[in-house]
Amino acid sequence: MVNNLGWWGKVNIGIIGAGSTGLLLAASLAKSNHKITMYVRRKTQQRKLQHNGVHLRPNGMTSKVDSQMHNELGLQDLYIICVKQPVLQKNVEGWINQIPRDKPILFLQNGMSHVDVIADFEQPIFVGVLDHGAKRVDDYTVEHTGIGEIRVGIIRKDDEALAKRVVLQLHEERFPIIFEENTLHIMKRKLIVNAVINPLTAMFNVRNGRILENAHLKALAKQLCYEACLALDMDFETHWIYVKQVAKKTESNSSSMREDVKQNQQTEVEAITGYLLQLTDQELPYNSFIYHGVQSLSIESWNQSD
Amino acid sequence: MVNNLGWWGKVNIGIIGAGSTGLLLAASLAKSNHKITMYVRRKTQQRKLQHNGVHLRPNGMTSKVDSQMHNELGLQDLYIICVKQPVLQKNVEGWINQIPRDKPILFLQNGMSHVDVIADFEQPIFVGVLDHGAKRVDDYTVEHTGIGEIRVGIIRKDDEALAKRVVLQLHEERFPIIFEENTLHIMKRKLIVNAVINPLTAMFNVRNGRILENAHLKALAKQLCYEACLALDMDFETHWIYVKQVAKKTESNSSSMREDVKQNQQTEVEAITGYLLQLTDQELPYNSFIYHGVQSLSIESWNQSD
Repeated sequence: MVNNLGWWGKVNIGIIGAGSTGLLLAASLAKSNHKITMYVRRKTQQRKLQHNGVHLRPNGMTSKVDSQMHNELGLQDLYIICVKQPVLQKNVEGWINQIPRDKPILFLQNGMSHVDVIADFEQPIFVGVLDHGAKRVDDYTVEHTGIGEIRVGIIRKDDEALAKRVVLQLHEERFPIIFEENTLHIMKRKLIVNAVINPLTAMFNVRNGRILENAHLKALAKQLCYEACLALDMDFETHWIYVKQVAKKTESNSSSMREDVKQNQQTEVEAITGYLLQLTDQELPYNSFIYHGVQSLSIESWNQSD
Repeated sequence: MVNNLGWWGKVNIGIIGAGSTGLLLAASLAKSNHKITMYVRRKTQQRKLQHNGVHLRPNGMTSKVDSQMHNELGLQDLYIICVKQPVLQKNVEGWINQIPRDKPILFLQNGMSHVDVIADFEQPIFVGVLDHGAKRVDDYTVEHTGIGEIRVGIIRKDDEALAKRVVLQLHEERFPIIFEENTLHIMKRKLIVNAVINPLTAMFNVRNGRILENAHLKALAKQLCYEACLALDMDFETHWIYVKQVAKKTESNSSSMREDVKQNQQTEVEAITGYLLQLTDQELPYNSFIYHGVQSLSIESWNQSD
């Protein structure tokens, strides 16, 4: 394989998707002097990004970025796909066909339902897990609400050397990007957290911390966690402690799924809870309940008449 | 046993509780020329009832009633207790001590958690199931939103003759009161309906009909029904059809539990879903989920900050 990241310093990065994750990455990587092109779906957002650059809060820094429509991908050294699962599923084939066979693609999604599909693509494939807190303020402004890190791994052994090199090149002390040997384990761990916190906070319209403070929500959280561990063959005790740590650490955050429901947008419940339900033949009644629950909520908020 | 209902015509009836059921009974029975005394908890409501009588909509009829505070029960031929389960549980001992040993008491509650307790009382005990639609408009006005009937039965064979006589005396074509041989069956059937429709409409803030129209709510309704039948040892197929019929017939109604959640009042989830959960050693995960769900909702609506 041709090493297309043999240079040091400026990397030409295409970021597909300009929600909170895409904007956070664009701002942070532009700050490290990489050249960023953002690919977006709406012409309005494309123009705003081109004109204003990306604003990062709370420090108020602005970085210049190029921006294009997502159906006209240009040539980059690295592509980072930051769109949500439903958007990914609809567009990924089209994007893959526009990306040269030797250019690496980093997928940053919640859930794991994309893993099977992308494993067959010819390009070097990286998968990442991001634990920053980020909130999209407007089309070109993002608020960095919690500092975390990005763990990048591979799903095919072939991609390892390149992935390690890319990670090394992007990593900065203030915006850590780390190579993760056990990526699937980390992805599963994140999936468990998302399967508990996201639908529960969405369904009951609460901030993350309430799932520990309200005894009834905590009982539901524990059952959801138990079933998620069962489906993913992970240890329950360890991961229930981990879920509680994350809920505590992000107690005043409003989960992305809660925000999606509030704003009448499609949620990721299919990619998170739906994925768990399809993964196993075992009954997961609490996850099944909350799956129908979040779906019901989306329908009812559209139909709300009284 | 002394037959204290040996007369025909005017019966002296004490109705304890003046919510929608109490007001509907008071208005309907007063219309049949029975003498009604209502026993209530709030002095304001007591005064309003004394002053205004009971208004029945939609026909706009007003009937004179006597009204007293619930902790000072007077002498009646028959007592009808129409309060909700949580109120019943708190007050029933006190009331029983004030009621002469030979006077019959009719209990009209949702759920069945009172049945074990009242079976031990010395007075003749009747239990009833009411399928009218009624909506309390204010302290002395009730809207009759759906015409139904009241089925009255017994839980001790000894009370049968008296129960049949009382039913015969209260029954009117336009307000049917019927003796029910298989009371427990009817109560169980009503419990199943309440265990499905009430918590589901409360949790998702929808009118009854939506649980058939929204496919995700229907899936949850079916599971809740299945488990309720399991706990009560009733046939699922038959009762799932029955639940759907009731939901259809009352499609534009807002369930009492939904109204309780909206108005930040204590719900009957403990007496309905909680009762089912305690009844059986089997796992009822969907009922367990919605039990915690409705409880969570009650807590969150009080704490709502954002």
